[in-house]
Amino acid sequence: MTDLTNIHALTFDVFGTVVDWRSGIVREAEALLAPKGLALDWGAFADAWRAEYQPAMAAVREGRRDYVVMDVLHREMLDVALEKFDVDGLDETEAHRLAMAWRRLDPWPDAIEGMSRLAARFAVAALSNGNVALILAMAKRAGIPWDVILGSELVRTYKPAPDIYDSAPRFLDLAPAQVMMVACHPWDLQAAAARGLRTAYVHRPLEWGPGTERPLPQVGEFDVIAGSFAELADALGV
Amino acid sequence: MTDLTNIHALTFDVFGTVVDWRSGIVREAEALLAPKGLALDWGAFADAWRAEYQPAMAAVREGRRDYVVMDVLHREMLDVALEKFDVDGLDETEAHRLAMAWRRLDPWPDAIEGMSRLAARFAVAALSNGNVALILAMAKRAGIPWDVILGSELVRTYKPAPDIYDSAPRFLDLAPAQVMMVACHPWDLQAAAARGLRTAYVHRPLEWGPGTERPLPQVGEFDVIAGSFAELADALGV
Repeated sequence: MTDLTNIHALTFDVFGTVVDWRSGIVREAEALLAPKGLALDWGAFADAWRAEYQPAMAAVREGRRDYVVMDVLHREMLDVALEKFDVDGLDETEAHRLAMAWRRLDPWPDAIEGMSRLAARFAVAALSNGNVALILAMAKRAGIPWDVILGSELVRTYKPAPDIYDSAPRFLDLAPAQVMMVACHPWDLQAAAARGLRTAYVHRPLEWGPGTERPLPQVGEFDVIAGSFAELADALGV
Repeated sequence: MTDLTNIHALTFDVFGTVVDWRSGIVREAEALLAPKGLALDWGAFADAWRAEYQPAMAAVREGRRDYVVMDVLHREMLDVALEKFDVDGLDETEAHRLAMAWRRLDPWPDAIEGMSRLAARFAVAALSNGNVALILAMAKRAGIPWDVILGSELVRTYKPAPDIYDSAPRFLDLAPAQVMMVACHPWDLQAAAARGLRTAYVHRPLEWGPGTERPLPQVGEFDVIAGSFAELADALGV
């Protein structure tokens, strides 16, 4: 059993872990495209857009292009998704507004209350691939109580690059083991653990929509395995 | 009259503008040193410590040394102040605890309420020479409602270096004229204005203690001249 009494800060993945990106993208895409007479499978469209996420970041991580912020990648990924669904006719203002939909996502129902409980004891930090302006705009709209926004833009690469996990304890003036990464994605937590951070897996079975649930991790695979931020707060004794 | 309707974010100087560093340093120095039998002029000691601030930052700005965070400069500046007051006999733990006193400063009486009003309309960002961990620890202790912590550490130099003022609109994805710098120091505001930011001067006549009040700026020297964060909120219509 890992000693969890020395944790000072929690660093959160955002897309999927704090916010329900799929429902938000479905809502925003439909709101912007349906009035143009388009009737897509909105869930499939959201999935197709998100499917470009890892390849887009890999190009930066692997040095095939210079760092650009996630807002820019979202805009480029949108063009790929629109082409897959044979959608054209968006002008640049419309495409920009749709690309910025990632700033207008809603938290999972337990997220704000759980984070507020956690923030009473710990520093709560975003450690996201989203750029500062994106995470900030999302937080102002949705009331997400970040103490500090860290992550990709401050080190100019993308998770799971080790630099990002190293940067959090450095900015927070803590030892890696005093920082706990909170995420719903095993790959993110495994990369954090490799840099010495503690790990909390939070199960988000609906991230990719109904019927896509993946199995829970094995007991012991992460320091905490929780079904919600409330369960995480319980596990950390706050 | 400057158009103030297009402002989206306020970037705040912290030491002097948000928090009353002198009273806090007086309190912390006395609490740590008086039990050792020392009876200094605590106000003069605080002033001597702070007097090393600009020279310490200048060495970084001018490239005479690599960037180190403000916590480190505070520790070095403390040694100079202690020597001036012929204080020795602090062990490293005591000296570190005293150097970290800059994380334990209280806001001016109007600051939290005024910032909370402002945060309802604008993104409120720290744009300080203090490092992220310092500004974060101060905020957690004192309840300062930052939306985001920007500033020195993210660009690895010190104000008034132009890079810092340029970094704020870049991180916030705004035009410089959509960002308003809030500070009690004309030099900070002048440097911000030179990079295209709007400026709000907030008068803090007690920054250097009783009897040290400096004159108000001339009308028109900054976009807003206010006597408190409440007056700033009034001026911005929130």
